[in-house]
Amino acid sequence: MNLQNALPNEIRAQIRSGALQVPTSGMAKGYVQANVVILPSKYAYDFLKFCFRNPKTCPLLDVSEVGSPSFMKYGKEADIRTDVGLYRLYKDGKFVEEYQDITDLYTDDLVSFLIGCSFTFEHALLEAGIPVRHIEENHNVPMYITNIPATPSGTFQGNITVSMRPMTMAEAIKATEITTQFKEVHGTPIHIGNPSEIGIQNLATPDFGDSVNIKPNEVPVFWGCGVTPQSVALDAKPEIMITHAPGHMFITDVKDSEMSH
Amino acid sequence: MNLQNALPNEIRAQIRSGALQVPTSGMAKGYVQANVVILPSKYAYDFLKFCFRNPKTCPLLDVSEVGSPSFMKYGKEADIRTDVGLYRLYKDGKFVEEYQDITDLYTDDLVSFLIGCSFTFEHALLEAGIPVRHIEENHNVPMYITNIPATPSGTFQGNITVSMRPMTMAEAIKATEITTQFKEVHGTPIHIGNPSEIGIQNLATPDFGDSVNIKPNEVPVFWGCGVTPQSVALDAKPEIMITHAPGHMFITDVKDSEMSH
Repeated sequence: MNLQNALPNEIRAQIRSGALQVPTSGMAKGYVQANVVILPSKYAYDFLKFCFRNPKTCPLLDVSEVGSPSFMKYGKEADIRTDVGLYRLYKDGKFVEEYQDITDLYTDDLVSFLIGCSFTFEHALLEAGIPVRHIEENHNVPMYITNIPATPSGTFQGNITVSMRPMTMAEAIKATEITTQFKEVHGTPIHIGNPSEIGIQNLATPDFGDSVNIKPNEVPVFWGCGVTPQSVALDAKPEIMITHAPGHMFITDVKDSEMSH
Repeated sequence: MNLQNALPNEIRAQIRSGALQVPTSGMAKGYVQANVVILPSKYAYDFLKFCFRNPKTCPLLDVSEVGSPSFMKYGKEADIRTDVGLYRLYKDGKFVEEYQDITDLYTDDLVSFLIGCSFTFEHALLEAGIPVRHIEENHNVPMYITNIPATPSGTFQGNITVSMRPMTMAEAIKATEITTQFKEVHGTPIHIGNPSEIGIQNLATPDFGDSVNIKPNEVPVFWGCGVTPQSVALDAKPEIMITHAPGHMFITDVKDSEMSH
């Protein structure tokens, strides 16, 4: 199977059967890939409200019914218990173990959230000729915890995390124009230019991911990052929380072009 | 006080004191006015999810914390118990009575939702020289129940209601372009042209509001309508539900220009 041109349900079937278990970057080209957060139903209202209040860092794409393994819009035939290649289980806010399948962990009381991921807009940036340095350098995007508080919701609160891509100011303006169209995957930048203005002391030491080379004529451009909802949810120390493992995204049935409107 | 140029908090203070109790159309020019739905907390999650799933008919602007009378973004200093000129109380899905103040009805268990209203985009249409017939004719916008089901959420389900404005096809295209910028107040049209395609048999007999004159060279243009969340909520027969009375909107602290992004 050509993974780049395969349809989402074909790839999910491969993952479900256990035949495929590698990071999903580049698979099912043109289809939205999503971050996954699974929580007990008692947290669902406050977490949904948190996403609504923080659309740039927590762009919610879909939410399951309580106990349902599928999604009305982004994966009608999907099964969230089996269709992600690698999961992470957290208990009381602490990482416990990775799983290839969470059928035995899933209960009627869990709610699954799909949150937008930057793969979608990075593809659009590349198409427009804007460099994406961490892709050029073939490692993870650098991510930083800022001093900007997210708007709290019930038990969920904390500062927002951003990802950074260096480019020239002309490219930053073009990138802002392009990401205006991608409100469902973080939208326009949070900040351009001065890291210390948003509480970042040293670009060379990201809080997550890997640092990237910044050329002399470039400025750092910061976007809201899908790590925010995960880290905020962990801070609330839910008795159980399941997420995708980094890079192993949920592949949805919705095309990038359907989402950007 | 010049109501058109007054600030939102000045007008809300007048309403709160009982000195002002007329429809809010035209007041606090440039600021967003909102539909109000107040429900017991046990309905809040499904109603929030309903709004998320139906952004064109139920564009949620803000939601209070449980029992809180104010809003984090759209009215920090507001008091939802007193700051609407006229309220409607419903019990078990049936209209009971209108109130000028709901301080005695409000409890620690209620949640208040602010939903976008078409006043905002009508203002933008008029500025662009596009006619808004019901304003010209000085009566209420015609509204129709369609055969298009809203995406359900828990107990909330039903067909969507649309409002209609007649214009030429060239104006309809321009209006679509303009309302692309107003995703938080219904966004682009649901349909242009053929009423029967969305289950409307007779434009002369709207389900709510008043019919308007359609000129020979005009087509009907249909937008999602804020009546949808109210009617869907009533169908769920909550033991108590409070809304604004038609025309008596909640005046928010957010400018139209801040919302359109």
